[in-house]
Amino acid sequence: MVLTQSAEEAVRQLKETLRIAGHHQQALYLLSWDNRTGAPKKGVQLRAEAIGTLSEEVFRMMTSEQMGEWLDTLAEPDVFASLDPVTQATVRYVRRNYERNRRLDPAQHREFVTLVAEAESVWEGAKHAADFARLRPYLERIVEFQKTFAQAWGYADHPYDALLDKYEPGLTVAQLDPLFEHLKTETTALLRAIVGTGRRSEWPQGRRFDAAKQREVCLHLLKSIGYDLEMGRLDETEHPFQISINRYDVRVTTRYVEEDLLSALFGTIHEGGHALYEQGISPDLINTPLCEGASMGIHESQSRFWENIIGRSRAFWEHHYPVLLQVFPTQLADVSLDVFHRAINEVQPSLIRIEADEVTYNLHIILRYELEKALLTGDLKVADLPAAWNEKMRELLGIVPRHDGEGVLQDVHWSGGDFGYFPSYALGNLYAAQFLEAMERVVPDWEDQLRRGQVDGILGWQREHIHRYGRMLEPAEIVVRATGRPLEAEPWLRYLKRKYGALYGV
Amino acid sequence: MVLTQSAEEAVRQLKETLRIAGHHQQALYLLSWDNRTGAPKKGVQLRAEAIGTLSEEVFRMMTSEQMGEWLDTLAEPDVFASLDPVTQATVRYVRRNYERNRRLDPAQHREFVTLVAEAESVWEGAKHAADFARLRPYLERIVEFQKTFAQAWGYADHPYDALLDKYEPGLTVAQLDPLFEHLKTETTALLRAIVGTGRRSEWPQGRRFDAAKQREVCLHLLKSIGYDLEMGRLDETEHPFQISINRYDVRVTTRYVEEDLLSALFGTIHEGGHALYEQGISPDLINTPLCEGASMGIHESQSRFWENIIGRSRAFWEHHYPVLLQVFPTQLADVSLDVFHRAINEVQPSLIRIEADEVTYNLHIILRYELEKALLTGDLKVADLPAAWNEKMRELLGIVPRHDGEGVLQDVHWSGGDFGYFPSYALGNLYAAQFLEAMERVVPDWEDQLRRGQVDGILGWQREHIHRYGRMLEPAEIVVRATGRPLEAEPWLRYLKRKYGALYGV
Repeated sequence: MVLTQSAEEAVRQLKETLRIAGHHQQALYLLSWDNRTGAPKKGVQLRAEAIGTLSEEVFRMMTSEQMGEWLDTLAEPDVFASLDPVTQATVRYVRRNYERNRRLDPAQHREFVTLVAEAESVWEGAKHAADFARLRPYLERIVEFQKTFAQAWGYADHPYDALLDKYEPGLTVAQLDPLFEHLKTETTALLRAIVGTGRRSEWPQGRRFDAAKQREVCLHLLKSIGYDLEMGRLDETEHPFQISINRYDVRVTTRYVEEDLLSALFGTIHEGGHALYEQGISPDLINTPLCEGASMGIHESQSRFWENIIGRSRAFWEHHYPVLLQVFPTQLADVSLDVFHRAINEVQPSLIRIEADEVTYNLHIILRYELEKALLTGDLKVADLPAAWNEKMRELLGIVPRHDGEGVLQDVHWSGGDFGYFPSYALGNLYAAQFLEAMERVVPDWEDQLRRGQVDGILGWQREHIHRYGRMLEPAEIVVRATGRPLEAEPWLRYLKRKYGALYGV
Repeated sequence: MVLTQSAEEAVRQLKETLRIAGHHQQALYLLSWDNRTGAPKKGVQLRAEAIGTLSEEVFRMMTSEQMGEWLDTLAEPDVFASLDPVTQATVRYVRRNYERNRRLDPAQHREFVTLVAEAESVWEGAKHAADFARLRPYLERIVEFQKTFAQAWGYADHPYDALLDKYEPGLTVAQLDPLFEHLKTETTALLRAIVGTGRRSEWPQGRRFDAAKQREVCLHLLKSIGYDLEMGRLDETEHPFQISINRYDVRVTTRYVEEDLLSALFGTIHEGGHALYEQGISPDLINTPLCEGASMGIHESQSRFWENIIGRSRAFWEHHYPVLLQVFPTQLADVSLDVFHRAINEVQPSLIRIEADEVTYNLHIILRYELEKALLTGDLKVADLPAAWNEKMRELLGIVPRHDGEGVLQDVHWSGGDFGYFPSYALGNLYAAQFLEAMERVVPDWEDQLRRGQVDGILGWQREHIHRYGRMLEPAEIVVRATGRPLEAEPWLRYLKRKYGALYGV
């Protein structure tokens, strides 16, 4: 079917608006990158005003009456069927966000944005002082907002589904509950066995690793995994992140701790994994909102794949450890590859999520997931959150924070209003292992390739089955197409048991 | 008189539009800064598209029919008289630009923008190959555009006035011609006397100054002259510049040449001088287009004041040379303060404007000014430009380029369409010396203050008489108010004769 004139016009206007919104978004990403890489402190207020203006313009463009009309025209079954696949996916994606946003009361939404901006800075003080009482009134209001949003967005089964959908389109509590329950049982059992061995890392303490030299190694590693520095750059920040200014400008940051070599190395590979994803999206998606990762969970699968499955493998370091020895000959003179490999894979229950190892990490996430659901249904009150947190820490990890600063207050997410986000991190692990098994069937010698310093086989598989699609496909579609199966926990558990079974003899 | 409701509404709408345009401009400045400080190469095309979109939006806001109506309403004598001074100056400034822009044919202007973008990249190749013929067709078209613009913008006396006005509002050829003629006579005489002494710098060649250490010194110097690093930052670029992202975010860049210590030192103080100006503008002007320097010439007066009058004075280095010795103890072990002071003030006719000393600098400008005028009136053809350039070099500086790469092709300005800009550099020198004499009357012990490492007296005077006004006043108003006299060449000539008379015994 040939498009009618009005449909053609709707396509043209939609694309032009998305192009212009994308240009604003590009400026917003740069402002955000700049904010976090050393923008002068005193300029923050005026910069925030500029960010506010540009964000409002994008929001206005994406929620205008006109936008609604173009989307309605293009969503007509006959018209939709005659659109090219990129336009179809664009209409589907833009329409879902349009409806989400139109369902919010603008005044209420502004109130929420102001609230979380304030809450984030209150959180910093509260965390530092380990004083939950300070944050409590903010969190109470934020949780009420989440309830309101969930009602506005709607859900079939559980209100938490409406929040999950924001980060992992299509995922539901009905899927997650059994998955996480199974994961919890199996992981705690494995953890008990590992802790029972009493084995500890022999990594030497107290050595100093020059930051400039760490940067050299990080650049080497980024290049080795296939990151293109001509469409990226590596900067230093307090909190490392990856950000795409545009399709050909995909930046990563890292943090050098001179007393802790491993921090920057694995932080860099992690952000590098995110960046490989963004550098691999099909150029056909430029100037559409599909030119991003499919979801937080799929994104996290790529960073965790490179950081953990590749970056903490023995094969990878058989090739790269000699480079590390060359850069730090005295500091590592007495450290064998085996000691290094065990050190970067040490398992130990710990209080802080972002420092957790592969085995315990998901337990930190499950804890937050269970608390978020309970807050949303009203089964848990914000006032009782610290006690509930500590109780779950004891149950899942066998340790309890000494104070709320290293407990319930450790993450910014809740203060930022990001309920429903945490599961993405655990999903990242599960997806990564499921992708690994699928990739292994096609590239069975991937470890040998790593030993030779090659990543083309691995990266090629990811590019073909994951990266290039951007947001063209839903997360669940990507997983099924790439692996032949829906999301499941078994590949991840097999991976954990094989790897840590060997490392700890359990 | 109380504002009528429609005037009140016009003020409100004008201010809101300027605020929003300013926020776009802030993003554009950051994109520009980023472009020049290491943005990934491959992202340039998509970044240029974003810059194009945001620039067009600003242009559209500033030239809309509505804008014209608000300005007309507010320019009514009765209404205008009842506005506060900031709003009056805003209306005056925005209106002038509105009229300038509305007089351009949009299609023609777009053609010009595309032409100069192309010409700038052709220029790079032409300069490198010393091949004027490559650039000639572009320059011919650019000169024709300048003639068209001058006619569109209008002028009372000389077409060049219309171009001058863009950079130095209110200045005319009738003022500049006698000023530059006088300057030329006096400067060439002084130069002949200096060259006649045969004295050369004793600065040692072939020493290496570590870039990281140069950066330390540059940061020290920036702080010493009063630059606030909490509302700024220092980065490294090929071509140093200063840029204000917002009123509290005023950045400078510099370039470290390890074989040439002086390059970064004086480049940094120069850009620091520009930055002091921007950091001193009254916060009352935030969110208006008046929150910038008054003109290119006044801006350049501040950078040159700090670079040359302060930065190349003996008093300044009596305080700071010990710091330099501390950072480079071996490299400077045998270099006395006197040798250093003479080295940073060496006078020598040279081919390249940006490397010229204080005495010869204005001659490079006068040469360009005379050529630009002749091109605009048609007295000179682009084809004859290289010969005319070389002839004037012989006349003014007594030397002739070996090829056009170090002659007529050395600057990007003409390829960028910036005709009328060059005089600003010379004006900067003249203004600076005129400000010096006025400041000296109030702060007679400024050199003693410098010897103690203090700049409060000097900077305080500048803040009060120049910086705080931003674009509230025209350049000529600033000069008259601050010095009691209109622009004149005598203070500059007195400064040159006193300083170089002492240094060279002439």
